[in-house]
Amino acid sequence: MPSYKAPVGDMSFLLNDVFKIEQYSNLAGFGDMNAEMVEAILGEAAKICEEQLQPLNLPGDQEGCKRKADGSVTTPKGFKECFRSFVEGGWLGLSADPDFGGQGLPYTLAAAVNEFSSAANMAFSMYPGLTAGAIAAIQVHGSPEQKAAFLPKMIAGTWSGTMNLTEPHCGTDLGQLRTKAAPKADGSYAITGTKIFISAGEQDITENIIHLVLARIEGAPEGVKGISLFIVPKFVLDKDGNPGTRNGVACGSIEHKMGIHANSTCVMNFDGATGYLIGEANKGLNAMFVMMNEARLGVAVQGLAQSEVAYQNAVAYAKDRIQGRALTGPKAPEKAADPIIVHPDVRRTLLTVRAFNEGARAFVIWSALKSDLAHRSEDAKERETNEEMLGLLTPVLKGFLTDRGFDNCVMAQQMFGGHGYIEEWGMSQFVRDARIAMIYEGANGIQALDLVGRKLPRKGGAALMALFGEVGGFLKDNAADEGMKPFVAPLQASANHMQQASMWLMQNGMTNPDNAGAASVDYMHLFGLLALGYMWALQAKVALAKGDDEAMKTKLTLARFYMERVLPETGLRLQRIQAGAGTVMSLPADVF
Amino acid sequence: MPSYKAPVGDMSFLLNDVFKIEQYSNLAGFGDMNAEMVEAILGEAAKICEEQLQPLNLPGDQEGCKRKADGSVTTPKGFKECFRSFVEGGWLGLSADPDFGGQGLPYTLAAAVNEFSSAANMAFSMYPGLTAGAIAAIQVHGSPEQKAAFLPKMIAGTWSGTMNLTEPHCGTDLGQLRTKAAPKADGSYAITGTKIFISAGEQDITENIIHLVLARIEGAPEGVKGISLFIVPKFVLDKDGNPGTRNGVACGSIEHKMGIHANSTCVMNFDGATGYLIGEANKGLNAMFVMMNEARLGVAVQGLAQSEVAYQNAVAYAKDRIQGRALTGPKAPEKAADPIIVHPDVRRTLLTVRAFNEGARAFVIWSALKSDLAHRSEDAKERETNEEMLGLLTPVLKGFLTDRGFDNCVMAQQMFGGHGYIEEWGMSQFVRDARIAMIYEGANGIQALDLVGRKLPRKGGAALMALFGEVGGFLKDNAADEGMKPFVAPLQASANHMQQASMWLMQNGMTNPDNAGAASVDYMHLFGLLALGYMWALQAKVALAKGDDEAMKTKLTLARFYMERVLPETGLRLQRIQAGAGTVMSLPADVF
Repeated sequence: MPSYKAPVGDMSFLLNDVFKIEQYSNLAGFGDMNAEMVEAILGEAAKICEEQLQPLNLPGDQEGCKRKADGSVTTPKGFKECFRSFVEGGWLGLSADPDFGGQGLPYTLAAAVNEFSSAANMAFSMYPGLTAGAIAAIQVHGSPEQKAAFLPKMIAGTWSGTMNLTEPHCGTDLGQLRTKAAPKADGSYAITGTKIFISAGEQDITENIIHLVLARIEGAPEGVKGISLFIVPKFVLDKDGNPGTRNGVACGSIEHKMGIHANSTCVMNFDGATGYLIGEANKGLNAMFVMMNEARLGVAVQGLAQSEVAYQNAVAYAKDRIQGRALTGPKAPEKAADPIIVHPDVRRTLLTVRAFNEGARAFVIWSALKSDLAHRSEDAKERETNEEMLGLLTPVLKGFLTDRGFDNCVMAQQMFGGHGYIEEWGMSQFVRDARIAMIYEGANGIQALDLVGRKLPRKGGAALMALFGEVGGFLKDNAADEGMKPFVAPLQASANHMQQASMWLMQNGMTNPDNAGAASVDYMHLFGLLALGYMWALQAKVALAKGDDEAMKTKLTLARFYMERVLPETGLRLQRIQAGAGTVMSLPADVF
Repeated sequence: MPSYKAPVGDMSFLLNDVFKIEQYSNLAGFGDMNAEMVEAILGEAAKICEEQLQPLNLPGDQEGCKRKADGSVTTPKGFKECFRSFVEGGWLGLSADPDFGGQGLPYTLAAAVNEFSSAANMAFSMYPGLTAGAIAAIQVHGSPEQKAAFLPKMIAGTWSGTMNLTEPHCGTDLGQLRTKAAPKADGSYAITGTKIFISAGEQDITENIIHLVLARIEGAPEGVKGISLFIVPKFVLDKDGNPGTRNGVACGSIEHKMGIHANSTCVMNFDGATGYLIGEANKGLNAMFVMMNEARLGVAVQGLAQSEVAYQNAVAYAKDRIQGRALTGPKAPEKAADPIIVHPDVRRTLLTVRAFNEGARAFVIWSALKSDLAHRSEDAKERETNEEMLGLLTPVLKGFLTDRGFDNCVMAQQMFGGHGYIEEWGMSQFVRDARIAMIYEGANGIQALDLVGRKLPRKGGAALMALFGEVGGFLKDNAADEGMKPFVAPLQASANHMQQASMWLMQNGMTNPDNAGAASVDYMHLFGLLALGYMWALQAKVALAKGDDEAMKTKLTLARFYMERVLPETGLRLQRIQAGAGTVMSLPADVF
């Protein structure tokens, strides 16, 4: 059976030592954030994730969700009770508005806890995760009445939330969306259409399910400018605000998927279901986009989380499995063979995964702090610059962390040899579960296009310039620091690659957008590699200052490993970007 | 439902135009090999693979194998009949000895057909594939009586074969093997022990199953020098050579795996089963190793095959799925959106996969011809140099082609967005099935170690030197060819990387073997990248000479794509290799 231990120590190191969360005490919800408080909260989160969520992960995968003929869906054994525990611990509403029962703590802390819960049980954590997303949407766009009606029950986990965007013929291209909303006399709408890939669309965990649904009001403009967002409860609320009559929305089927078996992925049929417009008519996509950054950061965290839990299990196996001898002579001569962790290639693999994990974790926390600043700062300028920066980082977080997270799960699985392929060992599940994170919430190719096509050029490239300024400043400040030498030079080289790539994109992507498209995924990875390089340099700086206890020495070794073996990939990415779209676009479609 | 069309045209191009199979007419079995014959055989193979094997692939995955309480195992519906068709078509015994009913055709042709059958139905093709492996072992090591007793029925597919190596505590490290062989008065042995991960160990397809089993004769030396190989039939043959009494070998359970569900992966319990020594006592590993090159080439082909079928389905989807508009303006203005194949990133992805497929296919055929030369040449020196070269190439074929083949399946799956994650679309199966090829027949990390630790230094590095000689000669011969310029320069650059890496290994791997271990996987990939680069240069040369029909123009575009975007990775691999083992080995095991 696989196991999991939440990385409380590393998370505390990041929050307290590297990013110094105490300095943000002027932000709402950050007032009590000191080292002790952070560790106490993370410790409690670790406890429920390790003790309650994780043990349900493998059985949940094996049992899966089941749909009955009446359209009801049962989740795996224990999920309902675990969900109750989770919400009663306050974890669902950790950063939600205290006026509606939330804890109002930093979003950054919620992102940290999100890593733990996703690592412990990704399929489970999607139930509260999607609910938190729906809460955020209603919080920002809902009327006071809508907030009062829905938020307290959702934050308490009595009701859950879902997102209904995709239709059979449209995923990425929401302009083709067909679900209709017909105005009714009472101001509500009758929603009719079919949505697919609706995670947690139906389940037996909560009393009511609050669907957020994109639909087109009759007579609305075509394309994305005619899409509105609606609240469609599974049970329409009665006059006391309790679940009343069953609404015209039902689960038509559930998907047989590669992974996240324990999360129900539903086809949802809306048949004149009562829906309530949320936000402005025809501005539904804007409403969705507000949540997009956090939702995508949430998926990025899933990539990291699966990589972390896969790493932990691979390490345990590599220490336990004895097979062959070290190349330099027996290390455990008293045994029939050495544990496979003596082998350089096993270590190279494990270090590749771990250097990603600890770099990516820093990247997530660094970015989440920007999200808190973007939403909670009292300085409008600070809100804006952080919002812009977060917008730039979001596709990189989502695309890079989930691509690499998946690759890492595959590498960790490989450490198990044949046992990695057997389901009961659990490694296959990490791979299968991690796979979806590259696809949903905007497939990674779309993230890359969002990065080069929208985020990069916004406001004359101000966010990218600010990032270069920050990294450049760090490099300058540390140029003379002898201890930082192994980190400054490689980071500088990769920052140069990124600058050349950005320049190339500006010069060649404008004249021919296919050049930008052909470069997009390589640019996203170049960006991610550099971002993690910067995160490692920041961590190395702190580790050097904290002196040479074992943990800090390990940090420095990991930082060196990242610089020596991972970061140099930026050069290759630059080369590919500069190859341009010529060859890529030169074949007629029919010869593919 | 996924589909498959065997690449008969590309295979014929390789066999006839690039590698000119006619020139080998002096080798046994090659006499009739001309372009028409090659195409006729490939066409027939394509037919059975497309029409009979492929339709069973997805249903076979969903149904899987089932073990009953009596230890019998049922394969999915249709497998038994399909197997009959396959063997009656002569495909199992394509390159087997005509004296025992085989067709005696080139192994190269069998490798080509193996790609088709693996692509059409990997789990199915393992039943004949493992039988062919067992046939080869008996052919080389069996006594005349053993050959006469087993080969005709196995080549006819009336009986099947399996390989029993792995035990619960030993996979890679066969020195730890515990299965016992106790001599009996009649010259046979009583075999007792447990084997795991035995593919096709039990099934309902054939009348008898001929297990080849590694075991230790009582009193044999410890370690790998005390291992012998035995034939253990499921039913002991009666005096007429027909299946008689049930032997003491049974399937204890079957594994619940990530993929290849339709191939039974068995725990085999041997309880005093009657076994017959094959080859010399205590030389069992040598006997196994003789088959190793071909078995590993077979697995390499699985990586290519899954990549090919995944590519084909991704292309079909990319042409069919309309979503969004081309960056340069609508390409299908009459439709609601453009097919996604208009997007540079979709094309980049598809071309990455296809440039691999057609390069890897050439690499397989080039290598398979060396196998034929190694076994069928009448010139002892030619046999030896080809055997040595094949030995060098084998770990690269197995490791590189299966690593990349899997990655390619993931990329092809990604083209489907959410649909790629749904099992009924079939893309998940290609990913799940391809995953095992990186693990079995020696995990890819072991292949890399075999490459740098054993194959590279053999005979003073003669095989590598010969390879450098061949590639260097080609580069020199084509240096002045204007049309070859886009291919010669990048290939030269990567050949230099490979030379530097090899030099580095020689200088640093001797003094500290951990340097070789830490470099091994990067070196294997560098080697594979260069090998495919050479294959693309060879194909480009022929394509240029054949003039500019559409297929040849496509070849040249793919060659350019490979040179521009794939091959440059050799520089990164070199950089990683030269990073050495220092950082990799510097952490104590307990901080992992």
